[in-house]
Amino acid sequence: MSRPRAAIVATGSELVRGERQDRNGPFLAAEVVRLGLEPWRITIVGDVPDALEQALREAFFADLCLVSGGLGPTHDDRTVELVARVAGRELIVDPVLERKIGEISRGIAERLGRPYADFAAGVRKQATLPAGAISLGLAGTAPGLVLDTGSCVAVVLPGPPRELQRLWPRALETAPVRRVLERAPALRRRTLRFFGTPESAVAQALERAGGDGDGVEVTICAREFEIHVDLLAEPAADARAGALAEALRSELADYLFSEDERPVAELVLELCEERGYTLATAESCTGGLVSGRLTSVPGASRTFLGGVVAYGNDVKASELGVPQDVLERHGAVSAEAAAAMAHGVRERLGADVAVAVTGIAGPTGGTPEKPVGLVFVHACTPDDESGIRSELPGDRELVRGRATALALHTTRALLARTRHTPV
Amino acid sequence: MSRPRAAIVATGSELVRGERQDRNGPFLAAEVVRLGLEPWRITIVGDVPDALEQALREAFFADLCLVSGGLGPTHDDRTVELVARVAGRELIVDPVLERKIGEISRGIAERLGRPYADFAAGVRKQATLPAGAISLGLAGTAPGLVLDTGSCVAVVLPGPPRELQRLWPRALETAPVRRVLERAPALRRRTLRFFGTPESAVAQALERAGGDGDGVEVTICAREFEIHVDLLAEPAADARAGALAEALRSELADYLFSEDERPVAELVLELCEERGYTLATAESCTGGLVSGRLTSVPGASRTFLGGVVAYGNDVKASELGVPQDVLERHGAVSAEAAAAMAHGVRERLGADVAVAVTGIAGPTGGTPEKPVGLVFVHACTPDDESGIRSELPGDRELVRGRATALALHTTRALLARTRHTPV
Repeated sequence: MSRPRAAIVATGSELVRGERQDRNGPFLAAEVVRLGLEPWRITIVGDVPDALEQALREAFFADLCLVSGGLGPTHDDRTVELVARVAGRELIVDPVLERKIGEISRGIAERLGRPYADFAAGVRKQATLPAGAISLGLAGTAPGLVLDTGSCVAVVLPGPPRELQRLWPRALETAPVRRVLERAPALRRRTLRFFGTPESAVAQALERAGGDGDGVEVTICAREFEIHVDLLAEPAADARAGALAEALRSELADYLFSEDERPVAELVLELCEERGYTLATAESCTGGLVSGRLTSVPGASRTFLGGVVAYGNDVKASELGVPQDVLERHGAVSAEAAAAMAHGVRERLGADVAVAVTGIAGPTGGTPEKPVGLVFVHACTPDDESGIRSELPGDRELVRGRATALALHTTRALLARTRHTPV
Repeated sequence: MSRPRAAIVATGSELVRGERQDRNGPFLAAEVVRLGLEPWRITIVGDVPDALEQALREAFFADLCLVSGGLGPTHDDRTVELVARVAGRELIVDPVLERKIGEISRGIAERLGRPYADFAAGVRKQATLPAGAISLGLAGTAPGLVLDTGSCVAVVLPGPPRELQRLWPRALETAPVRRVLERAPALRRRTLRFFGTPESAVAQALERAGGDGDGVEVTICAREFEIHVDLLAEPAADARAGALAEALRSELADYLFSEDERPVAELVLELCEERGYTLATAESCTGGLVSGRLTSVPGASRTFLGGVVAYGNDVKASELGVPQDVLERHGAVSAEAAAAMAHGVRERLGADVAVAVTGIAGPTGGTPEKPVGLVFVHACTPDDESGIRSELPGDRELVRGRATALALHTTRALLARTRHTPV
């Protein structure tokens, strides 16, 4: 499908050195996708002029080039100068801009008790634009601008994310940017989320259904131990995208858990709330990660009462009432212990629903019968329960992450099959 | 100084679409700086072959090219194929690799109850390498590799950050990468970690001490709500770097907590273990994140007994023994409640040391007297205790993350001032 392409250039030496995460690239990229353009690349460079000039030259091959950073008053802020050079434009001082930036800088000079002369060169520099550029106004003393080079529309924005996000809507209203956006098709997005099946199985199901292309773009992405599938369709390909989604839905029905963006913790809380249930957790190897995920959802306190992290065996016995007999005969990592933990926390906290997880996260503590990665999850509601045994691959952090996902998904699946009788 | 250049290419359509923040670029860039190379650019592209191929061609002008992602089993994982094309190498199936990936995939197929045939094509794809490549072994089923093109050494690593970080040290041991690193100046590294002071204060202290440059490169980086400072010195500038570090140490002594890389959770557990103490947690607004951080440290079970996530007020009363009187007069978010929670969990779990945190994470629930972000932390040992009130900025996730860091650092500071009498 032919959509206008967008390239993003983020400049800042702290970004290219890995000292700070670039937030502007992802923000602008998501905007680009929302507007129906094709996100072509994000390039992060420092303030070395060669590196920035080369990145701009490459990005100017796109239809829209979004540049952030390097608009400050000092010698290593070179973005405007290099944009002008790459576009083959002269640099011109804008007298209106110079007066405005001058006023702001006088205020700053006064507050800091420094002579305005210290600022004058910086003011002139920040009031200098490539010939033909449209000024977007100021963020602080940094001017945003739009420049139509004939083949590419460049939007130049300040580096601080809040200032960039404030000037961005103004860029969208300029005539050159609107001309690019008019060439973009309106896309419809469908989302499918799976748990318990590998990325490759989803990819194969997609291939069997005809694959993407022809106006449908499909991304398959493993995230939070789930498989997230996005289908983006041009208007003419909407029926094909619907058929692809339906094929995935039916072939992988056992693994499909959602068709929207909400995290599984939110789905668990919502299923509880719909049924008038409260929720509690009992965790051993995940050490609080399950309750951490649940409480990351705003409003979790309406449903989630709390939990017990029972790391030591004494705590499993004293706080969750796991019988010594179970711990001795089956061990703390067993289906029996997981069930006792779930029932124990449910009773202790007076919750309707509980989930427990116990396992061996490693790197040590494994045996031939109970290897590192062995995890037991047990979930229970007032009238149903569900126990899972799984051997999870990976190191300590991966096992803990996977066990957390397994606990949440086991609870979600149990609640989903529980008849919904609103109270 | 003339240093070898490194370029980073991160591929993943979810990255270039702004759906997920790239973590590999910043990690690898920081590594590149640490190793004394010049970080030239980070390019983020999706799985469009043209975009990835072009990014690789540009990056291959650097001395070292680090590529992440696109190593999966599906058709849109094209990194190996395109690296081979850009380097002018054939693709060859590695039979040893094919057997290894096959074994892992058989295990996965069994666990998921799916036929191995679903995996065979993906296995062969993942066992295919450019001619002359050095295999770095597997992360999951994804192979890492190093390829010396003559002018550029390319390191290809899997996209999941944890897997990338596991294979990266192996890449550093290969002969081609070592040859690049030998051309970099040998740098001595000093690390200082601060908590409780802003990045700008550290930057100003550095400027007052003379600033970096002249063979000393200083990076100041806010991470995990701490300020991490790295000083990298060329041999001739080692004394100057030592003086800079000493200036930071003395000016910011109250905030310095470590001169190595270990996370604060590990420091807390170590301080407990040295003193023969066991540890427990009581959490409200952090919902398990503090215990989650503590249990992420291998061997945490030697010291950490467990914790109570007391999200609802009833649980604070019933499981932690917080008096109704305290809840009614001071509220669940109060210094008094935090202290009662800490003492309660210490007694209930029979621990020597306990830390409690309660607060208002938002977005709702704030009042003029108790705004969103208000957090109380209380830590206690057998003979000392420490309570902190703080108003933390940011949204729900930031407040929870900052509160978690505050709880761990409060505990660390309390333990550090407790006389160390080994038992």
